[in-house]
Amino acid sequence: MTEMTEEKSEFKLIEWIRQQRQDGDAKDVITGIGDDMAVVLVGGRKLLITTDVLLEGVHFDLERATLEQVGYKAMACSLSDCAAMAAIPFVAVVAVALPKTMTMDQAQRLYQGLQQAAGKYNCPIVGGDTTSWDKPLTIDVTMLAKVGATEPILRSGAQVGDTILITGELGGSLNGKHLGFSPRVQESRLLAQMVELHAMIDISDGMSIDLNHICCESRVAAEIDARAIPVSQVAQSSADPLTAALSDGEDFELLFCVSPSDAEKLLREWPGRSTVRLSSVGRIIQAKGEQRLFIRQMDGTVEPLEVKGWEHFNE
Amino acid sequence: MTEMTEEKSEFKLIEWIRQQRQDGDAKDVITGIGDDMAVVLVGGRKLLITTDVLLEGVHFDLERATLEQVGYKAMACSLSDCAAMAAIPFVAVVAVALPKTMTMDQAQRLYQGLQQAAGKYNCPIVGGDTTSWDKPLTIDVTMLAKVGATEPILRSGAQVGDTILITGELGGSLNGKHLGFSPRVQESRLLAQMVELHAMIDISDGMSIDLNHICCESRVAAEIDARAIPVSQVAQSSADPLTAALSDGEDFELLFCVSPSDAEKLLREWPGRSTVRLSSVGRIIQAKGEQRLFIRQMDGTVEPLEVKGWEHFNE
Repeated sequence: MTEMTEEKSEFKLIEWIRQQRQDGDAKDVITGIGDDMAVVLVGGRKLLITTDVLLEGVHFDLERATLEQVGYKAMACSLSDCAAMAAIPFVAVVAVALPKTMTMDQAQRLYQGLQQAAGKYNCPIVGGDTTSWDKPLTIDVTMLAKVGATEPILRSGAQVGDTILITGELGGSLNGKHLGFSPRVQESRLLAQMVELHAMIDISDGMSIDLNHICCESRVAAEIDARAIPVSQVAQSSADPLTAALSDGEDFELLFCVSPSDAEKLLREWPGRSTVRLSSVGRIIQAKGEQRLFIRQMDGTVEPLEVKGWEHFNE
Repeated sequence: MTEMTEEKSEFKLIEWIRQQRQDGDAKDVITGIGDDMAVVLVGGRKLLITTDVLLEGVHFDLERATLEQVGYKAMACSLSDCAAMAAIPFVAVVAVALPKTMTMDQAQRLYQGLQQAAGKYNCPIVGGDTTSWDKPLTIDVTMLAKVGATEPILRSGAQVGDTILITGELGGSLNGKHLGFSPRVQESRLLAQMVELHAMIDISDGMSIDLNHICCESRVAAEIDARAIPVSQVAQSSADPLTAALSDGEDFELLFCVSPSDAEKLLREWPGRSTVRLSSVGRIIQAKGEQRLFIRQMDGTVEPLEVKGWEHFNE
C-alpha cells in the first residue's frame, strides 16, 4: 500500500488519473483532464466543461459567511474557470448535500446566492441534485461554456520569452474576497479580443502553484519579479506580504502569458478599457530541470521559488 | 422561518427552485429543472445534462461495499438517467471529496470503479475536481449525453389510456443490486427504436414516487395492478414484498408509457430481442384530484396508493 504521507497529493492523483485515460472515444474529446475546463466537440462545435466542489469547513465557514455568499462563491468558482479559458458561460447544474438541520429557508437562501451569480453572469441553472445527510454542507457546480471570440486558451501554450501578466491583486483572499470576488469573465474576453493569449489560468490554489501548472503543461520555466507582484492591501498587513500574495490562493485573478509586444500594448491600452489593475510580473524562460519557478528578489538576486499554496489532498 | 417538519422536502425545494427560474437566456434551454436530464441547445444540437451526488452513509456504506463498487455505482446512476431519456452517454466529469484518511491506493480503487463503468458504457471521464476533508466520502458525477434515434423522452408525455411498462424486477436493491446494477442504456435505445415512447423515468427513489413524477408532469393519474408488479426474488423474502417493490428505490429500472398497441407489440417482440424482463403493470387514467396513484389489489378492489420511497431532504 502506498504511504500516504509520501505519495498522496491531489496533483499526483490527477496525474495518475490522466495516465489511465482511455482513448476509445477520444475523437470528440479535444482537451481532457488537466486544464481549467475540458473541451469536447458537440455537433462540430467546441463545448467546455468544469466541475467544482465547495465543502463546509474547507472552502467556507458558515460562522463567517452567509448562505447567500456560499451559493454565490460556488457559482463564481466555476465562472472563474470559464474566464481562465476565455470562454462564455452557458449553463450550470448544481448538486448539493444539505445538512439535515438545514431549514427550507436556509436552503432557499443558498439557492438565491447561486442564482445571484447565475443571473449576473448570464449562466442559468438548468438542473441539479438535492440530497441531505447529517454531515456538513457540500455544493458541486458543473458549468458548460461556449467558445468566445477565440479558441479556448489552454495552460499549455506559454512560449519562452513571453511576458507574464496578472489581473487585480493577490493575497489575503480568505479575509473576505473569496466570498464575493468578481470572476474575470468580461476581462478575459476583452483580453482575448485585444491580444493573442498564449496560455492562461485562474489563480485558485495560489499564484506559485498555478504558474507552475502553466510551466509544466507548456514545458517551460518562469522568472517572476518580487517588486512587480501586485500585493493586495489586506496581504500587506500580514507578516510576510509577498509570500501571502504568492501562495494564499483563492484570488480568482487571471494569470496569462503573451508576447512582449502584446504585453506592451496591453499595459498601454488596458487602463482605458477597464478599471481592473493589470501587472506585468515576469517572463517565461527555458526549463533546465525540475525547478521551474524562479524569483528575482528585491535586491536583484534570482532564487528558486518554492511552489506552495492550497493543495487539498495532502493537507 | 419555515417549519422544517411540515414544509421541508426535496421535492418542495425543487418545485420552489423551478419557480425561481430566470428565463433570460432560455432560448437555448429546452428542458430545465424537473426531468431526469436537462436539455440544452449547442450549435443547433440537443445536449443533455445530469448530475448525481453519492454520499457515504446515505447512498453507500464502505463496510458493505468496496471502493470499486462505489465508483461504479456513481457512474451507473448518471448512466441510468441517460437511459431514462433514451439518450446516448457522451462524457462525464467527476468531483470527489475524499476523507483525509483515504490512501492513494484507495483513491485509485475508487477511480477504477468509475472507469469500469465509463469504459463499459463508452462514456469517458474528461475532467473533475479532487478535494479532501475530514468528513465522509462524496462523489458527484455530471454526465452529458447526446440525442439518440429519437428525441429525448420526457416525464411529461404520458397520455390517458397508455400502458405502463417496467424493465427488470423491483425491490430489495439495497441488498446488493444497487452497487452493481446495469443501467438500461442499451434497452432504452432498443425500446425507442421499436415503439413510440410517450414518457419515461428511471426508478431511483421508488416506483410509486417515480410513477407519481410522471403523473404530475403529464397531468394524468395511474392505476397499477398489484398482481403484475415484477417483485424481485430478494424482495419476495421481505415482510411485505409488494410494498418493497413499490417503494424500496434504487432499482434503476425503466418505467415508461406507450400506447396499448405498442405495449402489445413490445410484449410480443421484446423477448426475442433482450433477456431483460419486461412487464405491463398498469395504465394511465384521467386525473381527478390530488391523488394520482391507484392500485388494483390482489382481490380486485381499487384503492389509492400511498406515494412513498426514498425522499432525501425530509428523512
